[in-house]
Amino acid sequence: MKILTFLTDFGLKNSYVAQMKGVALSLTDAKIVDITHQITPHNILEGAFVLRSSAPYFPSGTVHVAVVDPGVGTDRKGIVITTPTQILVGPDNGLLIPTAQHLGDFVVYEIQNQNLLLKSISNTFHGRDVFTPVAVHILNGILFEEIGPIIKDYKTLDLGKTEILNQRIIGKIIYIDSFGNIITNIDGDILKKHFEFNKKIKIYINRKRREIPFVRSYGFANKGELLGTIGSSNLFEISINQGNAKKQLGAEVGNEIKILL
Amino acid sequence: MKILTFLTDFGLKNSYVAQMKGVALSLTDAKIVDITHQITPHNILEGAFVLRSSAPYFPSGTVHVAVVDPGVGTDRKGIVITTPTQILVGPDNGLLIPTAQHLGDFVVYEIQNQNLLLKSISNTFHGRDVFTPVAVHILNGILFEEIGPIIKDYKTLDLGKTEILNQRIIGKIIYIDSFGNIITNIDGDILKKHFEFNKKIKIYINRKRREIPFVRSYGFANKGELLGTIGSSNLFEISINQGNAKKQLGAEVGNEIKILL
Amino acid sequence: MKILTFLTDFGLKNSYVAQMKGVALSLTDAKIVDITHQITPHNILEGAFVLRSSAPYFPSGTVHVAVVDPGVGTDRKGIVITTPTQILVGPDNGLLIPTAQHLGDFVVYEIQNQNLLLKSISNTFHGRDVFTPVAVHILNGILFEEIGPIIKDYKTLDLGKTEILNQRIIGKIIYIDSFGNIITNIDGDILKKHFEFNKKIKIYINRKRREIPFVRSYGFANKGELLGTIGSSNLFEISINQGNAKKQLGAEVGNEIKILL
Repeated sequence: MKILTFLTDFGLKNSYVAQMKGVALSLTDAKIVDITHQITPHNILEGAFVLRSSAPYFPSGTVHVAVVDPGVGTDRKGIVITTPTQILVGPDNGLLIPTAQHLGDFVVYEIQNQNLLLKSISNTFHGRDVFTPVAVHILNGILFEEIGPIIKDYKTLDLGKTEILNQRIIGKIIYIDSFGNIITNIDGDILKKHFEFNKKIKIYINRKRREIPFVRSYGFANKGELLGTIGSSNLFEISINQGNAKKQLGAEVGNEIKILL
Repeated sequence: MKILTFLTDFGLKNSYVAQMKGVALSLTDAKIVDITHQITPHNILEGAFVLRSSAPYFPSGTVHVAVVDPGVGTDRKGIVITTPTQILVGPDNGLLIPTAQHLGDFVVYEIQNQNLLLKSISNTFHGRDVFTPVAVHILNGILFEEIGPIIKDYKTLDLGKTEILNQRIIGKIIYIDSFGNIITNIDGDILKKHFEFNKKIKIYINRKRREIPFVRSYGFANKGELLGTIGSSNLFEISINQGNAKKQLGAEVGNEIKILL
Repeated sequence: MKILTFLTDFGLKNSYVAQMKGVALSLTDAKIVDITHQITPHNILEGAFVLRSSAPYFPSGTVHVAVVDPGVGTDRKGIVITTPTQILVGPDNGLLIPTAQHLGDFVVYEIQNQNLLLKSISNTFHGRDVFTPVAVHILNGILFEEIGPIIKDYKTLDLGKTEILNQRIIGKIIYIDSFGNIITNIDGDILKKHFEFNKKIKIYINRKRREIPFVRSYGFANKGELLGTIGSSNLFEISINQGNAKKQLGAEVGNEIKILL
């Protein structure tokens, strides 16, 4: 079974996503899956996190097209990344890198073979004219060497790592989901080593100290209570049981989070 | 043809829906259909109504995964419901019950067989780790007995019924759609028995009396005019032709509606 | 491979789209693609533009169901349009016409054969009860003659054309996408004939004169700078590099745009 996924910041009200799917279905009968089209416009970091969270759950051989691409039509390159299991296609702006790193040893090809693209290429929509046709050619069995040369000077992107300093676990907010759950880059395994469920932990968020229960899941806090948990991506998450933590705390992606040991 | 549907309150901007689809497609080539992912967060009643409105239109054998699940990770059970035509999978919080009742005689199984689940189960995302894999095993032909025991003490949920009292048909608002159409639980057949199209009816909404035309469809009222009609689920609906009745009336789900006989 | 697409103003939170898909999948194993369900409610012009922008990218034989239908249940007709490559199904209110004109010589059939419809037809939801079943019968190989008679008095709709008058190219805004990019009906080929990339052009928008760079793509303007470009539908587009032109200019669909020659 061939699977092609799309992740973009195009939204769902325009015709852009449908144009990409039309192009794909003209060349393949692959199953098409939308990861999301609601990345905040031009937010490469958010796109990288959502792709990194989703791609590992797809079967081997899946080809992912990701397009958050403020540099479209300039001299930024288009790339294909092969990993031990899956293939990533998109702009060379860092968007694909955290996913590639997570999937294992990877190789980056620059898209240079014009024969793989639509005949007429717009300057503003490479998702349709470049990345989708290349992805479909890959699903149809092209050799990776036909795409273009292997490159080493691709753009990177760092989702950040957990630090432990002065008896504090230090991380940052990397994503806020549509429930208002605040997702940090602090690894769940570190928390499990230092804390027990159903005890209080002390955290700093927006320079304000708070004492919150550390629980197995949302429902173990009272309704409306702020809580810490380990979310489904094994990352430390600050939430409110049946409420919206983002709204209550005024938290933003990038804010620092400290947990006192 | 195997069909798997999803109904959740996850929204479309996160990676959660894609994670569920990745898990499903790792185990089946079923057709995947989104019912919606835009249930108001934690609103079990709304989810139950939308599932009940959609499921009957799907072919026999369809498996529906529904996840509006504020109690995830606590001791609330996971269940599978078999009906004469379709199968429902989700949390034991009432979400699935109105659909099951509508589809006919049903049996509720508690999910207990750990072999049917993902190997590593998060505490916050049973949609991905429990309900999707169980649904796929059902599509792949597992015996229902392998899921777990039949239970009788499942949680129920009532969408409410029409009453006739003191020459008034009494019901309530159970859903407001994205056009602002106000959908009540008052059965269309009762209205047809008592009223003729293109005559006026007298209703109370938010304690305010209004006289509105009862029409066959929106376009039979003037543009901008408030109207009553029988919607596509055979329920009494209050609408504005090419306008938004919810905004004009300030109506909310749960408000009482009376129609004078 | 059979492909069925849907374009509606139904939104994604209701059960309406799922109901249509359930009906379709009860009768066919076609691949279903959503063009969009987020057309502004009742906005036929917007629906017509999005369908016209998307349909040409789909393979020959695709059947498109489009439903922006304020006249549902009145005496407005239902129609099927055959073109040299694709088939369009929807209400007779102009919605399908710009796409049909773009695809080539077309023929309009009025839907009259009741045997092609659902057995019980609501007055408010012909997308489910009329257009989807007809579309599926077409995918399943019915003769077009079985649909109903060819009609000539169908409703038309005009997306407008570019005029050149008094040394001004005159057009209007026909769409604003979710990035806030302002899309006009001014043909890209006319611009290419009169202007060079990376030079300034003078435009009037909302009666205000502005001098903006005419560039190959967004990234050739400074971040936050207003620019003119030729978008992916070969139409003149006013944008802000990594910003929202609609918000900054307060532009609306229908506003006149002039470019000084």
